[in-house]
Amino acid sequence: MPQPLKLHPDRLFSSDLEIRAIARRLYAQVATLPIVSPHGHTDPEWWATDAPFGNATELLLHPDHYIFRMLYSQGVSLEDLGIGNPDADPRESWRLFASRYHLFRGTPSRMWLDWVFSQSFELDVLLSAETSDHYYDRITEALTTDAFRPRALFERYNIEVIATTESPLDDLRHHQAIRDSGWKGRVITAYRPDPVVDPEFEGFHHNLEILSDMTGEDCFSWPGYLAAHRKRRAFFAAMGATSTDHGHPTARTANLAPVEAEALFGRVAGGQASPEDAELFRAQMLTEMAGMSLEDGLVMQIHPGAFRNHNKQLFDKFGRDKGADIPTRTDYVQALRPLLGKYGNEARLSIILFTLDESVYARELAPLAGHYPCLKLGPAWWFHDSPEGMRRFRENVTETAGFYNTVGFNDDTRAFLSIPARHDVARRVDCNFLARLVAEHRMEEWEAADLAVDLAYNLVKAAYRL
Amino acid sequence: MPQPLKLHPDRLFSSDLEIRAIARRLYAQVATLPIVSPHGHTDPEWWATDAPFGNATELLLHPDHYIFRMLYSQGVSLEDLGIGNPDADPRESWRLFASRYHLFRGTPSRMWLDWVFSQSFELDVLLSAETSDHYYDRITEALTTDAFRPRALFERYNIEVIATTESPLDDLRHHQAIRDSGWKGRVITAYRPDPVVDPEFEGFHHNLEILSDMTGEDCFSWPGYLAAHRKRRAFFAAMGATSTDHGHPTARTANLAPVEAEALFGRVAGGQASPEDAELFRAQMLTEMAGMSLEDGLVMQIHPGAFRNHNKQLFDKFGRDKGADIPTRTDYVQALRPLLGKYGNEARLSIILFTLDESVYARELAPLAGHYPCLKLGPAWWFHDSPEGMRRFRENVTETAGFYNTVGFNDDTRAFLSIPARHDVARRVDCNFLARLVAEHRMEEWEAADLAVDLAYNLVKAAYRL
Amino acid sequence: MPQPLKLHPDRLFSSDLEIRAIARRLYAQVATLPIVSPHGHTDPEWWATDAPFGNATELLLHPDHYIFRMLYSQGVSLEDLGIGNPDADPRESWRLFASRYHLFRGTPSRMWLDWVFSQSFELDVLLSAETSDHYYDRITEALTTDAFRPRALFERYNIEVIATTESPLDDLRHHQAIRDSGWKGRVITAYRPDPVVDPEFEGFHHNLEILSDMTGEDCFSWPGYLAAHRKRRAFFAAMGATSTDHGHPTARTANLAPVEAEALFGRVAGGQASPEDAELFRAQMLTEMAGMSLEDGLVMQIHPGAFRNHNKQLFDKFGRDKGADIPTRTDYVQALRPLLGKYGNEARLSIILFTLDESVYARELAPLAGHYPCLKLGPAWWFHDSPEGMRRFRENVTETAGFYNTVGFNDDTRAFLSIPARHDVARRVDCNFLARLVAEHRMEEWEAADLAVDLAYNLVKAAYRL
Repeated sequence: MPQPLKLHPDRLFSSDLEIRAIARRLYAQVATLPIVSPHGHTDPEWWATDAPFGNATELLLHPDHYIFRMLYSQGVSLEDLGIGNPDADPRESWRLFASRYHLFRGTPSRMWLDWVFSQSFELDVLLSAETSDHYYDRITEALTTDAFRPRALFERYNIEVIATTESPLDDLRHHQAIRDSGWKGRVITAYRPDPVVDPEFEGFHHNLEILSDMTGEDCFSWPGYLAAHRKRRAFFAAMGATSTDHGHPTARTANLAPVEAEALFGRVAGGQASPEDAELFRAQMLTEMAGMSLEDGLVMQIHPGAFRNHNKQLFDKFGRDKGADIPTRTDYVQALRPLLGKYGNEARLSIILFTLDESVYARELAPLAGHYPCLKLGPAWWFHDSPEGMRRFRENVTETAGFYNTVGFNDDTRAFLSIPARHDVARRVDCNFLARLVAEHRMEEWEAADLAVDLAYNLVKAAYRL
Repeated sequence: MPQPLKLHPDRLFSSDLEIRAIARRLYAQVATLPIVSPHGHTDPEWWATDAPFGNATELLLHPDHYIFRMLYSQGVSLEDLGIGNPDADPRESWRLFASRYHLFRGTPSRMWLDWVFSQSFELDVLLSAETSDHYYDRITEALTTDAFRPRALFERYNIEVIATTESPLDDLRHHQAIRDSGWKGRVITAYRPDPVVDPEFEGFHHNLEILSDMTGEDCFSWPGYLAAHRKRRAFFAAMGATSTDHGHPTARTANLAPVEAEALFGRVAGGQASPEDAELFRAQMLTEMAGMSLEDGLVMQIHPGAFRNHNKQLFDKFGRDKGADIPTRTDYVQALRPLLGKYGNEARLSIILFTLDESVYARELAPLAGHYPCLKLGPAWWFHDSPEGMRRFRENVTETAGFYNTVGFNDDTRAFLSIPARHDVARRVDCNFLARLVAEHRMEEWEAADLAVDLAYNLVKAAYRL
Repeated sequence: MPQPLKLHPDRLFSSDLEIRAIARRLYAQVATLPIVSPHGHTDPEWWATDAPFGNATELLLHPDHYIFRMLYSQGVSLEDLGIGNPDADPRESWRLFASRYHLFRGTPSRMWLDWVFSQSFELDVLLSAETSDHYYDRITEALTTDAFRPRALFERYNIEVIATTESPLDDLRHHQAIRDSGWKGRVITAYRPDPVVDPEFEGFHHNLEILSDMTGEDCFSWPGYLAAHRKRRAFFAAMGATSTDHGHPTARTANLAPVEAEALFGRVAGGQASPEDAELFRAQMLTEMAGMSLEDGLVMQIHPGAFRNHNKQLFDKFGRDKGADIPTRTDYVQALRPLLGKYGNEARLSIILFTLDESVYARELAPLAGHYPCLKLGPAWWFHDSPEGMRRFRENVTETAGFYNTVGFNDDTRAFLSIPARHDVARRVDCNFLARLVAEHRMEEWEAADLAVDLAYNLVKAAYRL
């Protein structure tokens, strides 16, 4: 007999009767608020073409590195999951996943997936070896219906706005197609210049050539390169972007004299950059980008601290984003000082900081954001986008930075179907956190009710200028 | 309609019925114990002159960098708050604060302030734009009465002893005046030699000249400099000091051979110190101070890990202590080893360690204090002087260092009126922590009752030799 | 009147009624499961000779650095405790401990000791100055009876298997004697090569000579040295070992070209190694050992991050393991990459990582173990082998690594009598953690019941190949 699958209405709320009662009341206010998703990695082509998704494996397993990294850690090969292997039978790959579903106990993936299975596909038994084919068939069949086409899901999920992330080299054709289609869904882009800012990015030199062609600027000269950024930022803003995003290895910034910056760029563009040059150039570019944000109003997001592609064998065989990025210790206090020394007191500038190093929440990020007018703190990110991760974020950050130097929730995902589940987890965890403060008489319930709506909806709209 | 303001008698206690009942019983034993405040930054002139405080803004806003750093982070200018701007209307500054009081939700400042408003000024509505003038008038009017003069508040707050912090260059005239006045309030000083120990302190060279004049020693010679410290320490001790305090950027110590130390001092006193020399000199001076503490019995406090004046523009305009100090990652294991190698096994020596880097609680500080006889751990400090911060301190420290290698609570504040509120928060959080241990059968209630009194009163008196 | 001593059946369970009820049910399933102790430091001679233990002080105080480090931190001299001082009266030493038993409030030692006193010696009053002699006499007398001889305790404690830890230089005579005796208790060894792998270990050069003699290999040549390891590993495996153990200062690994490794070994064996050479050699040897583990199937344990013998005066007088080892900040992401680059994708290889630096749980260890097939995470270790430490481990690790990349509990102790108490604490804390997940509807109770048995019994047997 398969086990039943049912989502409990009190999930993620404390079992303490007082806290739970308050959490329920707070959550009732925010459960159905529209989803504002200001940062993520969904594919705009989905909404441009509105083509149906393929099968269960393609939709749910292949884009979700949280899933296949766990399976890989327990000895399942990526080839057998169909990663980089078009010959794999998707039904067999799904079975490998289904029969190991117990590995996900206690992980957020389990909660997100159960939500998708239950709420989107109306499955009422738990995923297992026994129910694998039932799942595969039900999901794959549903995907052939109009109700599961991308735009229909977008509307069903009550998404008010979603941001994708594109490189300056992207022509944004899909975003243009969405606009041209007359469909009302609000899908915007975000400016992620890493491929033309990071000298160590694959194809950096060639990327500068493309950028030159796209902009008519000489991107091998410092003024031309900066002008090209300004042009592309303006184009992105015209296509709805309200933010930029920077995924550097560290949070280092620099504030070089113009002549030094130009000389550094010369080495970088000429292909003679040392690793230290590359790091310094990325650092300088964060400050340049902050300056441009002051000009054009784009909100700046800094996402540092991932050691990308830690597993070289895997990278050589399968490429990026295969679950082998690992967080590293990250300094912000020294690292951000050059940028903050130049622009830190500008209240018109908005920089949202993220981290994968939770030890900096209370020690560095909350004190910085609780002082500098330009700084705000992004939510618990990536590996920390989880109930315990979010709880630690609130417990560590709130007492020094308050709630109003934070910016609501980001789902940051390419797993489209999990987006409502992720927002739901965040709303529940925040309501539960607020409920504890109320139950411990550290806040009045009417204040918590205000905050619940702010954390779920108002703060993100204000912070991202949406 | 303004919202009511009321302090709930169970605030900060768990909503779990069993824990709450125990916490109430424990707290009842300590709620009214006298306040022992062994480390802080109140101004001894208050008690020397007993002059009335000014208005609400001067009393509560201007000395409290927790408040104005939050307001600044949300775009309020310091000038408008009256910081460094005598032309600002204090009532208008207060309004800026009052209308943004929601920013403090979830912060300890909110709890401290509500205590002051409710308990000291008998206000019964919440601070807001609407109630701003009511607050301003009520507070400012109260300050004209005798009941709100410094000595009256000292007595009303049941302060058994309070320590201020002075530089060796201070003549302690206010402390002398307090003694001469016949008033019974016990106000003592603490020896904070940073201005004559840190070669990078503003005016260091000039400070050595003053120290020479004050002591009759040649403070540009190593023996004279050390002798001057001994003289000033003796003077401070005579004025009631039982402790010294050292606010270095790091916890680094050194144990140089005398000839090396003298040579280093030569470079420092001669103004030729490199940054590394400056750091090494501070390090050596911690060890020298430990040696003097062995001689004269003054308890040594080490407060490392603040990056002072991180915001250079702000510092240039407004000076120190404007909410722009940011904690940094801090090592203790390597850093303290030279000092501990020399004096670590001296049970007569007492060194109290503080940190702004919570990642060292369980990893470094508790193991060190749970071994070395000279070491004790100061309470959760500064940004961590908060309910969650105190909880993390106890949870991380207790299992390795126990309770008896800690030293009770420090308020460490210049916001005088908040002192009882701060001690009350600490007592409540500690009682709630102990109550959880009892409720989980990890300790008997009679033991927790002993400990509650120890943590609130006995440990601090013993540790600071008061 | 002495206070009563009684162990509450709900100890370590939440006082929340719902969580407690679930925790009780989960715990009932695992409370009496056999003890599997795959890593520790008990003395095989105990079971080889089955000789009675001495007195209370020798049995419980002298081998337990958790106890005497706390007493030392509060001013008790090691000499008075009888450490390195055969002239001390053991009854007097016990009194020093007994009269300071309150120092252990809130520590795991207190819980372990109370378990031993109550469950093993049927004491029903609390240890104190008043009951000191009663304790000393009761315990010392019991030790003269057959029921308290090592094998009897082994059986009474329901130990299924226990691993000791030996150097390659050990002839394993006690393990041989156990086998020869016909006694059925399963006591196995583990291969801990630090004395012949760490060039900074006391007597390293001489150790290589002994290793040469034992193996007939020239351990001053690189091929001979490696061959000697292979021979000793094979011998240890034949004596039951299923694992190796590596206690390096850091987690650094290296993957040198063979010719470079040989040259490095030349400097090391020749006594000319610099500190950097020593560190690099330890690093290279971790990778060599991983290669050998691929060959012979021994599970590899890496225990980095202790600054050994931090207190030099104490070390010079009393030697190793006197409570003066202090954890340090430890990096894994960079450090392990050379080894993982070579062997990380081998699912047949099993490496169990430990840490004393909790800040790496969520940031580094869980992401690494949640990806690399060869990696698993050891339980909360040493100073973190405590209720709060275990809770932090689960809360920080589970969401990214799941439960199935962890390996159950290790007691890691030389305090034999505390072993059942330590396993009991771990089982209670895990059941309580799982119960919270159930009570918050993050997991079904039948899943938690499966997991409770896995965490207490199945995972450790699988991970250690027992």
